[in-house]
Amino acid sequence: MKALLILAHGSRRKASNDEVAQLVDKVRRLADAEYKEITHAFLELSEPDIQTAIASLAEKGTNDISVLPYFLNSGNHVTQDIPELIEQAKSNFPDCNFHIASPIGLHQEMPALILQCAKQPNL
Amino acid sequence: MKALLILAHGSRRKASNDEVAQLVDKVRRLADAEYKEITHAFLELSEPDIQTAIASLAEKGTNDISVLPYFLNSGNHVTQDIPELIEQAKSNFPDCNFHIASPIGLHQEMPALILQCAKQPNL
Repeated sequence: MKALLILAHGSRRKASNDEVAQLVDKVRRLADAEYKEITHAFLELSEPDIQTAIASLAEKGTNDISVLPYFLNSGNHVTQDIPELIEQAKSNFPDCNFHIASPIGLHQEMPALILQCAKQPNL
Repeated sequence: MKALLILAHGSRRKASNDEVAQLVDKVRRLADAEYKEITHAFLELSEPDIQTAIASLAEKGTNDISVLPYFLNSGNHVTQDIPELIEQAKSNFPDCNFHIASPIGLHQEMPALILQCAKQPNL
């Protein structure tokens, strides 16, 4: 049973964290039946944290979790912190497979999205 | 004469900042002739900072700058820090028009990109 865990940085600003939850709702509506669960967690500053989210997925019977770093660049969070957190999760849930996906910022369509966004006025 | 300024957070990790420069190169290759200059700046932790980048664009004759917040969420950086920095730039360069675009994370294609990225293994 597969799950997708979208892992965002987290903000002190509630509206910013709410945006992540709204985005994940959109991902759920768009996804096919491959993922039985699609959820999110925050690295810092908001909840749920990654271990809590993974424990919740495991309780629901998930045994295969794709972790999508919702980060634009391969900074320390992506290259060090997230892999360390997933190693810890592997120890806690040895029967679950974990895959860390490419961070969103490395998607090949990002340059095109930048040019499109540049035309859209701010909030 | 129009310019596009892609404004990223900046990282302590040089490779992460280099990714931004590489991304901006891709944006340049993809863009049409609308923007005479396409460049980047960092909010923190790396250079050039936004005022230095804007001064450089102004020296080249730019009088219209679109600032693209390369941020995923509307956290304090997007809602407070960037608008304050642009207000400061307006005082320094009163003959230049500034537009703050929507942050990249609010692009409507983001949910589809997340699902595509989830299939791509990490670096």
